[in-house]
Amino acid sequence: MLAVVRKEVLVRYSESISIPFYMVNEEGTLTLANLVNLVQQVSEHQLHGRSSQLDLVARYNIGWVITQSQIEIKRMPQAEEQVTLWTEATAYNRLLCYRDYGVIDADGNDIVTVHSTWVMMDLSTRKIVPVIDAIVEDFGAAKVTRVKRLPRLPKFADPEGERTYWVRYFDIDTNHHVNNVHYFDWMQDAIGYDWMRTHTLTAANIKYEREVEPGTQLQSQYKVVQEDGKLATYHQVRVGETVNATAHLEWQNK
Amino acid sequence: MLAVVRKEVLVRYSESISIPFYMVNEEGTLTLANLVNLVQQVSEHQLHGRSSQLDLVARYNIGWVITQSQIEIKRMPQAEEQVTLWTEATAYNRLLCYRDYGVIDADGNDIVTVHSTWVMMDLSTRKIVPVIDAIVEDFGAAKVTRVKRLPRLPKFADPEGERTYWVRYFDIDTNHHVNNVHYFDWMQDAIGYDWMRTHTLTAANIKYEREVEPGTQLQSQYKVVQEDGKLATYHQVRVGETVNATAHLEWQNK
Repeated sequence: MLAVVRKEVLVRYSESISIPFYMVNEEGTLTLANLVNLVQQVSEHQLHGRSSQLDLVARYNIGWVITQSQIEIKRMPQAEEQVTLWTEATAYNRLLCYRDYGVIDADGNDIVTVHSTWVMMDLSTRKIVPVIDAIVEDFGAAKVTRVKRLPRLPKFADPEGERTYWVRYFDIDTNHHVNNVHYFDWMQDAIGYDWMRTHTLTAANIKYEREVEPGTQLQSQYKVVQEDGKLATYHQVRVGETVNATAHLEWQNK
Repeated sequence: MLAVVRKEVLVRYSESISIPFYMVNEEGTLTLANLVNLVQQVSEHQLHGRSSQLDLVARYNIGWVITQSQIEIKRMPQAEEQVTLWTEATAYNRLLCYRDYGVIDADGNDIVTVHSTWVMMDLSTRKIVPVIDAIVEDFGAAKVTRVKRLPRLPKFADPEGERTYWVRYFDIDTNHHVNNVHYFDWMQDAIGYDWMRTHTLTAANIKYEREVEPGTQLQSQYKVVQEDGKLATYHQVRVGETVNATAHLEWQNK
């Protein structure tokens, strides 16, 4: 019986919106950080729209922390474009919960797809805890023992360039943590205006390893590589000797 | 007859929205920069919703550039709060156009009010041009000869503190200029986390004098003053000896 109930509540939650002007770059294209702002807002709405979820989160006193995100971009939407944003909690195991997101254009094309993994943090101890079944099953996610790992990301010791950033007051979100979208801005900005103006992003894979603390200075380092004829950049955000996040971005020449 | 027609087209344009999660600070309160993002988006919609405006802008090849903004904040809205955003082009003279904005909460209270002045820029020459009557009369703005000046803003030579910022790639908007909202982030972030966590913003007056160029480094300087028992900060954004923007913010202790 439980399996039947789970299938009934399995939800792909979606919302239609127009891409706001303030979210686009100088070419009128949605930025990567704002793409993630938009889709994560949709999962917040899915959560807040279910009183059962609010009750469960309140009962267990946990918050969600993203650990990795893999993004495929066929085409980023433009300012004022009407799109549908969707999300779905797909599966979970003892420690990780899998959530997908996507963007569909007005013609029904899947233009962006996101696979992401999340862990649960105890809000009192700030420690990661095993996934609480009741919370994720309420979304219809299925428990699995074997899981697909998102692609691994290498660290590197030979950056081609780096830039220093200060964690700004406005980078901190209501969890009193640096919001995960800011890593994308640090990473892409460090490559410089020339690169950003002459290349189109086609994929991004980011792994969050350790939070950058509010008020610290960080280095955003990158290197450019050719992989099987594809253009890619590796990125790491570090504070001193600690690597806090790594990413792999794929590009096309414009 | 013209006067009658003008009255008919005088529009207070408004939209209802829910404040997005990604626009709030760590306390869940809408930030000043995002307030301006939201209300300026409403005037973009007012403009784009009128084919006559698109035709006029195309015919005259002009863009709008903000010169000053005076903001009164009774209460900043919170994440997920339902509010109405409104805008209205109120008056214009030979060089300036006056536009008001506001935020009204679900109980009908005016919680934020904005007065702003704009000039028209020729998009080919990038020079300021006299206001083109046809464009602003299409919104119902009345031509005036005497105008209310927004409060003046002093420069200062004795900053109490300063912080250096780099104009990031993502600070540039579709006009290929630094978007005006970023000045607020540079100004407030420079005062530091402690100040931001212990004070509530009640008013802001910002004057844009000269654009900060993409790719430059700027200094955000401030000083704290007591004015008739009120707490205020003066701000200036400068590149070398040039002052690009000045602001006066008013605060209450939390």
